[in-house]
Amino acid sequence: MEKKKNTKNNIIRSFEEDPINWYTDIIFKAELMLYGPTKGTMYLRPYTISIWNLIIKWLTKEFSKNGVEEVKFPLIFPKSLLDKEKKHIEGFAPEILLITHIGNKKLTDFNVIRPTSEMLFSDYFKKTIKTYNQLPVKLNQWVNIMRWENNTRPFLRNSEFYWQEGHTVHNTEEEAKKFSILIHEIYKNFLNKILLLPIISGEKSTNERFAGAINTYTQETILKDGQALQVATSHYLGNEFAKSVNFKIQNKENKYFYPFQSSWGTSTRLIGGIIMTHSDNKGLVLPSKISPFQIVIIPIKNKNNDFNFDNFLNTIYSKINRNFRIKIDNSDNSFGYLIKNWEIKGVPIIIEIGAKEFSNSNLILKIRSESKKRIIDLKDLNAKMISNFLKEHDKKIKEIALNNFLNKKIWISSLEDLKKNIIIGNVVYCYWIEDSKLEDKIKKETGATIRLLYNEKKSAKSVNKEDITTQVAIFARSY
Amino acid sequence: MEKKKNTKNNIIRSFEEDPINWYTDIIFKAELMLYGPTKGTMYLRPYTISIWNLIIKWLTKEFSKNGVEEVKFPLIFPKSLLDKEKKHIEGFAPEILLITHIGNKKLTDFNVIRPTSEMLFSDYFKKTIKTYNQLPVKLNQWVNIMRWENNTRPFLRNSEFYWQEGHTVHNTEEEAKKFSILIHEIYKNFLNKILLLPIISGEKSTNERFAGAINTYTQETILKDGQALQVATSHYLGNEFAKSVNFKIQNKENKYFYPFQSSWGTSTRLIGGIIMTHSDNKGLVLPSKISPFQIVIIPIKNKNNDFNFDNFLNTIYSKINRNFRIKIDNSDNSFGYLIKNWEIKGVPIIIEIGAKEFSNSNLILKIRSESKKRIIDLKDLNAKMISNFLKEHDKKIKEIALNNFLNKKIWISSLEDLKKNIIIGNVVYCYWIEDSKLEDKIKKETGATIRLLYNEKKSAKSVNKEDITTQVAIFARSY
Repeated sequence: MEKKKNTKNNIIRSFEEDPINWYTDIIFKAELMLYGPTKGTMYLRPYTISIWNLIIKWLTKEFSKNGVEEVKFPLIFPKSLLDKEKKHIEGFAPEILLITHIGNKKLTDFNVIRPTSEMLFSDYFKKTIKTYNQLPVKLNQWVNIMRWENNTRPFLRNSEFYWQEGHTVHNTEEEAKKFSILIHEIYKNFLNKILLLPIISGEKSTNERFAGAINTYTQETILKDGQALQVATSHYLGNEFAKSVNFKIQNKENKYFYPFQSSWGTSTRLIGGIIMTHSDNKGLVLPSKISPFQIVIIPIKNKNNDFNFDNFLNTIYSKINRNFRIKIDNSDNSFGYLIKNWEIKGVPIIIEIGAKEFSNSNLILKIRSESKKRIIDLKDLNAKMISNFLKEHDKKIKEIALNNFLNKKIWISSLEDLKKNIIIGNVVYCYWIEDSKLEDKIKKETGATIRLLYNEKKSAKSVNKEDITTQVAIFARSY
Repeated sequence: MEKKKNTKNNIIRSFEEDPINWYTDIIFKAELMLYGPTKGTMYLRPYTISIWNLIIKWLTKEFSKNGVEEVKFPLIFPKSLLDKEKKHIEGFAPEILLITHIGNKKLTDFNVIRPTSEMLFSDYFKKTIKTYNQLPVKLNQWVNIMRWENNTRPFLRNSEFYWQEGHTVHNTEEEAKKFSILIHEIYKNFLNKILLLPIISGEKSTNERFAGAINTYTQETILKDGQALQVATSHYLGNEFAKSVNFKIQNKENKYFYPFQSSWGTSTRLIGGIIMTHSDNKGLVLPSKISPFQIVIIPIKNKNNDFNFDNFLNTIYSKINRNFRIKIDNSDNSFGYLIKNWEIKGVPIIIEIGAKEFSNSNLILKIRSESKKRIIDLKDLNAKMISNFLKEHDKKIKEIALNNFLNKKIWISSLEDLKKNIIIGNVVYCYWIEDSKLEDKIKKETGATIRLLYNEKKSAKSVNKEDITTQVAIFARSY
């Protein structure tokens, strides 16, 4: 009964016909999450946590190389602390979860669940940093945060999500800014080379910038549907934050000054980005470096088959040196179900061993991003071969994602073309001189925003003013 | 100025004269935490998180070997869900943090911050497990939870703390019980061999058992002050939980039955236990396996010394193969300050290199748990030597902790002696037959509880009844 039901469950609606249900079908059938009892919360299932832990491991290693240390700061804090940062808080006010009671007892000072932890880092820095020779201080935490959302979508927009927030303090403007750009580059490299996402990167316009930041550097990925998804940002904060909370320290001459800060973050949104970029109509497709299993081996069982697979599997293991994350699926389900299940879960390589393969000492190997099956002689199998197959898989899915982006990418040179192309779902590039009012107008009319600004080597006439500029804006709709 | 202040800061009040301030001095001066803005919350500083991450790594590896998968479940859930589990909730009701508003909008269904996640695991299991052939399911999460505390003490009793909660579902009573005991043994091994704590382990009495559990297995450590600290528990739940939430699944014959469960957890209390067991009047003392740095190298700088330490340090590195967690402290502080600082932080091995050592190609090596300094010829240094020193350190601190426990441990054979010994702070062993009323009475009179029960091979007359028994109770005061 179970098997029948599962097989039926393996149908995924097509992206082309029903993109919304395609997305949720993948999420449920790849067993990534279930909805929690409270709207916008999720039960993150083992497969998701395996992916997330691999992401944490990669990024933490990079942060650590650059002197960043890990902390965990409080989940809740008094609302009064939040109210102090008026400027910063405006964006959050309606989304904040308020704790008013402990048991039946009303609190005199209400508490909030952190929507972000700027205020806590400020408080901590003030308490622990007194002089210039303690700097730089570079801290990061991997934690959950909450911001109430009315329109939720798994991984893309949740009331509770997991993220990493880094906060640093430096003696000079230059050092702080340099560090925020260094982190921006770490994100870019990770998104490009590990997650294999088609990334656009640059700086936010004044309208879209993080409140209180001097520069907001952003990494965004272009999803299968042409929408942009902001996946990682790094802010250079100057000493505006320090001034607003009166965080002063002593320099060499024992005089007080406001130190310079950066902050930066990425979140479980990344998982939404991976799904929406790489998946196909058979299910999830995972980049090999963050796939919980890189190879799944399925020994095909049937009534006439009581081979001792152990030797066969041991031979495979010894040949590929256990260098990879390998799963042997010995479960009771039918062969057809197992193949479909691991396809839906996006495993880069599936190896099948049936009666025929067993007798002939070979195996059937299928790369998730290819349609063909390969027959591999067991004696030819080695770690290098597997490594090459994983590279092929990664190259292929990166190409597909990039091509999809390039199909949506268009350069335009008139405002009329700008709107026309946004409306049909393109990612629009144009020379642009900052103009908040026009930007607002376009947003109202089309729903699209400037995702980021960057500079081309060559200048050209801007689409919105008479001037020449090297600055390019990328307009797109976004999640 | 800073240096002077820091040096002064390095004074730790003695355990013998002022145990309460000794504990907090160590916590602050080893830079483990700061108090958060809300009572009972903590800023967990990098040194603590490094220790905690090493703990997570060790335990997760053991859990994973036994088929446990990692998840993350929601931080908040509707209060109504909690109210369903009346039996379970009685103990928590006054401690629960209640979310009543989002921004200015009042919620119709109030939410709570998880004080534990039993209800969520029940909900999840009901939604995902339908038949026997999906079992066993073994899940664990490392998360923060909140229970309001009026009397807080860093790491020992906090309103917010980090823990791990494991929840499993099995087809049979036997399998579930066996698994809860397996985890109990994993904890024991970890506490004994990695954290080097003097552990007592056994089963809780009916009075002290987790509400809803059939058996509660506990691991407790005896602290420097003779008090017990419950650090890890594993519960065999039978199918009582399944019955109370009507969680039924199908067996081979398609008939419904209530499956059997276990749950188990340990928390950042462990860190309190480590501090309160191993520290001395010079500060924290860390077991080598969970010390963020196993070796700190301090090159002594002075005005006449501008040696190129790089070669010297590279030689050290190459000789000990970078197999250890090593920190080179090149910071600007005075030599005296640096030595004190790393002593306070409990690093197992400190290596000093001064002008004289530099010239003679040797180094001064000090093991935290010894008072003597060793002079090591650079050419004799190797990984095996370091490894042996770490083993010596570990052996020594384990011995000290064990001796402390043995000094407090006493066997008694009368109720009069029981009370007398509890009052002077001993850990009291006696043959005991379960008697809830007398247990309550002793608790009221002395503040001590039965920490656990276990069976001796030989039987003897119980202290509380006329009967002979093999069952022993350990009475102690506890945090």
